[in-house]
Amino acid sequence: MKNILIIGAGRSTSYLFKYLLDNAQSEDWFIRVCDENQDLAKQKVKNHSRAEAVYFDIFNEEARRYFIGESDLVISMLPAHMHAIIAKECILQKTHMVTASYISTDIQSLNDEAKSKGVILMNEIGVDPGIDHMSAMQIIDDVRKLGGKILQFETFTGGLLSPDSEKDNPWKYKFTWNPRNVVLAGYGGAVKFIQEGKYKYIPYHQLFRRTEQIEIDRYGKFEGYANRDSLKYRNIYGLDDIPTIYRGTLRRPGFCRTWDVFVKLGATDDSYIIDDLDYMTHRDFLNLFLAYNLHDSVELKLMHYLKIDQDSDIMEKLSWLGMFDHTLIGLKRGTPAQVLEHVLMKKWALTPDDKDMIVMYHKIGYEIKGKKEQIESSMVCIGKDQTFTAMAKTVGLPVAIATKMILNNKITKSGVHLPVSKEIYQPILKELQKHDIHFNEVYGPFIGY
Amino acid sequence: MKNILIIGAGRSTSYLFKYLLDNAQSEDWFIRVCDENQDLAKQKVKNHSRAEAVYFDIFNEEARRYFIGESDLVISMLPAHMHAIIAKECILQKTHMVTASYISTDIQSLNDEAKSKGVILMNEIGVDPGIDHMSAMQIIDDVRKLGGKILQFETFTGGLLSPDSEKDNPWKYKFTWNPRNVVLAGYGGAVKFIQEGKYKYIPYHQLFRRTEQIEIDRYGKFEGYANRDSLKYRNIYGLDDIPTIYRGTLRRPGFCRTWDVFVKLGATDDSYIIDDLDYMTHRDFLNLFLAYNLHDSVELKLMHYLKIDQDSDIMEKLSWLGMFDHTLIGLKRGTPAQVLEHVLMKKWALTPDDKDMIVMYHKIGYEIKGKKEQIESSMVCIGKDQTFTAMAKTVGLPVAIATKMILNNKITKSGVHLPVSKEIYQPILKELQKHDIHFNEVYGPFIGY
Repeated sequence: MKNILIIGAGRSTSYLFKYLLDNAQSEDWFIRVCDENQDLAKQKVKNHSRAEAVYFDIFNEEARRYFIGESDLVISMLPAHMHAIIAKECILQKTHMVTASYISTDIQSLNDEAKSKGVILMNEIGVDPGIDHMSAMQIIDDVRKLGGKILQFETFTGGLLSPDSEKDNPWKYKFTWNPRNVVLAGYGGAVKFIQEGKYKYIPYHQLFRRTEQIEIDRYGKFEGYANRDSLKYRNIYGLDDIPTIYRGTLRRPGFCRTWDVFVKLGATDDSYIIDDLDYMTHRDFLNLFLAYNLHDSVELKLMHYLKIDQDSDIMEKLSWLGMFDHTLIGLKRGTPAQVLEHVLMKKWALTPDDKDMIVMYHKIGYEIKGKKEQIESSMVCIGKDQTFTAMAKTVGLPVAIATKMILNNKITKSGVHLPVSKEIYQPILKELQKHDIHFNEVYGPFIGY
Repeated sequence: MKNILIIGAGRSTSYLFKYLLDNAQSEDWFIRVCDENQDLAKQKVKNHSRAEAVYFDIFNEEARRYFIGESDLVISMLPAHMHAIIAKECILQKTHMVTASYISTDIQSLNDEAKSKGVILMNEIGVDPGIDHMSAMQIIDDVRKLGGKILQFETFTGGLLSPDSEKDNPWKYKFTWNPRNVVLAGYGGAVKFIQEGKYKYIPYHQLFRRTEQIEIDRYGKFEGYANRDSLKYRNIYGLDDIPTIYRGTLRRPGFCRTWDVFVKLGATDDSYIIDDLDYMTHRDFLNLFLAYNLHDSVELKLMHYLKIDQDSDIMEKLSWLGMFDHTLIGLKRGTPAQVLEHVLMKKWALTPDDKDMIVMYHKIGYEIKGKKEQIESSMVCIGKDQTFTAMAKTVGLPVAIATKMILNNKITKSGVHLPVSKEIYQPILKELQKHDIHFNEVYGPFIGY
C-alpha cells in the first residue's frame, strides 16, 4: 500500500480528492489529509475507508517529520512560500512531492539534494502553470519532430465566469480564485517580453491599455494583458532564440480598460495605509485620488481626469460596482488595494448559482521547409457548481494524475521538475481528455505582425 | 581659536568656503577640509593661512576620531546616508555638527545621546530643506503672534536656469544639481497631502499631470508638482490641524507634461536592467516602451499611444533632446532611469555660460479676528557663474551662518535640530538678506479653493 499525504484542503481541491479517493482501492492507496481547518479535512475524506483526516502543525519539526516519514508522496496545496519547509523534509525522508505552484528559488536550490536522494519534486502541474506548459510543449515538440522552427509563441489563460453566469454583469467577471492576487495582478514591476526580436517593456500603469484581442470559436472574444516576465520561458521551453514570446491573462473585452481606471487612480497601490479610513464611503475612496474641488462631483472629476465619456461602458461598470455610492466601505485600516478588494467583494463574490470557466489559448507560429504556418490551440473548461469548479478540475486533475504516475514509477527522474518533457505531459494530457479537458486546434497560414 | 572641519568639498560648497575663509581671521577660526578628491580640497583652501586641506578615510575609525576630536564643529557635506557615522563620533568627541540634509531616522535616533553630551546636531539648514523652513516659520510665527490661525500652507522650491540661460531651450531646464535625483523625482511611491481637510494621494505615474500654476512678479509663470510626503510637515511646523498642506517642486510651464511622457512610457523605471543595451540608439530606447509594428514610425506610435498632437510643444521638447535620433546611447548596461539620465546629460549638462536660479514660493492663508487673508512670499536667487551658483549660495550660506552662530554660542540647544525656532531662523534670515537672499511678500484676501 502507498501512503499519500495531502497538506492543505482548501480551494481547488475537490477534484483532487475525488480522483484520489475514487482510485484509492484499485491503486492500493491510503490518503491522509491535513488542514488548519480540521473540519474541512474531515469533510474531504468523507468517512472513506482508505482516507483519514489528521492534524499537525507544519511548523512543528517532530510532527512534520513523523507524518512525512509515514508517506510515500506528499501533495502540498499550501501557499507557495510554504512549500520549501515541506520539500526539505521530503528529501530527508525520501518522500516524493507534488505542487501546483511556480518553482521558487528556494525550491530550485533543493535540486541537487533531491537528486542525490532519488526524490522527485514535481511542481507547476496545475492549470497555469501546468496544463499551459504541457499543452504548449506538445505542440512545440510536434513541430520540432517535423523539422520545424518556432517563430512565435503566445499563450493566454484566464479564470473567468461561465457564459451563463456572465449575464447581467457588465464586467463579465467575478473572483473565481484569490481576490488579492487579482487586485494586485502586475503590480510592482515592469512587464517584459520580446516581439519579432525587439525587447518590449510595459510599466504597470500602462499594462491594462496594452491588450491583445483573441477569439475562440463558440466562446466569443477575449482580451489578454501581459504577464510579468515572459522572457524566462524561452529557456524553460527550449526556445532561446525565439523572436516572439508573450504570456498573458484573459478577460472579457472591456474589462481591462475599466480596470485601468483603478490603476491610473492609484487605487491598486499596496504600499501605504490610507489615513482616516473608518468613516469613508465607496465614493470617498475614489475621491482620495481626485483633485480637491468644493463643487464638482466625483463623477465629473473622474471623467475629466481620465478622459472618460459619460455614456461609456467604463462609467457603467464603475456604477454597477457601486463605486460612486455613499455606502460605507466597512474597513478600519487598509491600503488602497485592500480597500478595493473589499469593495469589489461586495459584487464580485460568487453566488451559489455561479459557475466558473477556465480558458486557455496558444498561438504558435512556425516554419517547416520554408513554409510559415501557425496553430491556434484552445481549451475551455466550465465548472459544474461551486464545489466542482473548472479551477478545481484543471488544477486538481493534473496534480492527481502526476501523483499516480510517480507512485506507479511512470515518472522516475529525481530532482526539481516541471512538466515539460514528453514522458510526463503525454500521458497526463491523454488522461485529461477522458475528463473532457481537451484542446481544439486550428491550423492556418502564419500571420505574425 | 575654533577649529572647523569640513568633510566633502564638492558641489554647492563655493559660498560656504568663501564665507568661512572671509571670516576666519575676524572670528579666529582654523578650517580643515577633507575630500576624497584631495586636489579639490586643496583648491578650496587656496593657500589661505587659516585653512588646510587634510585627507583621511572617514571609514577609518582612528583617523575619523583624530580629526573630529581636533575640531569644535564639523560640517558634513557628504551624501545624506553617510552623516550618521560622523555624527556618532561628534557626540563622543563633544563636537557640534551641521548638515544641509534631511534628518534621517539614524540621525534622529541620536537625539538623546547628543543632548546628554551637550552636542548640537543641526540639520536641514541649506535651501530646501533649510531656507524654506526658516522663511515659512517666520510667517507662521508672525501670524500666530497676531492671534491668527493658519488655514492653508503651500510651498514650492525649484532649482532652475536663470532667465538668460533658458533661451533656445524649450524645456527651460538643465541639470543644476544631482541628475539622478531629478530623473527619479517622485519615483517609487505615492504622493500624500491634504486639501481642505481631505486626504489626497497621487500615484507616481500621475504626479506630473497634477500640477499647480504659480506666478512670481518679474519672473513669470511656473508650475509645481507635489513632493512625496507633505503630511509630516504638519507636525514639524506645529500645524497639526491645518486643513491644507502641500509641498512641491517648481519647473517652467510645460516641463511636467513632457516629463510625463517619460513617466508614462516607463522610461524612469529604475527596477530592472535593459536587455541588449549595447547597440541601442536614443530612438531604440523609446521604442522599447512602444508596441511592436513593422511599419509605423516611433514618432507615430508614441503620439498615438500617449495621445500627443504632432504640433504640440511635447514633440518639440522631445525632438530637441534628440530622443528620436539614431544616435548611440553609449551605455553598456543600465536601468531605464540610468539610460534616460545619460541621454538627457547630452543636452541638459550646464555649459560654461549657463547660470542657475533658485526660486522659492510660499502661499499661506490664515484667519485673524474673523478675517481671512493670505501672504504670498517669494525668493529668487540667480547664480553668478558655474562656481558661484545660486544653489551653492542658498545651500552654503545658511550652513556657514549656522556654523558661526554655534561657535559664538548664539545657538546653544543641544540635540538633533532643524531650523524652525525663532532664535535660529531670525538671525540667519537677517544675514541672508545682506547677501541679497530675501523674500518679497504680497498680501491679499484669502482665495482658497
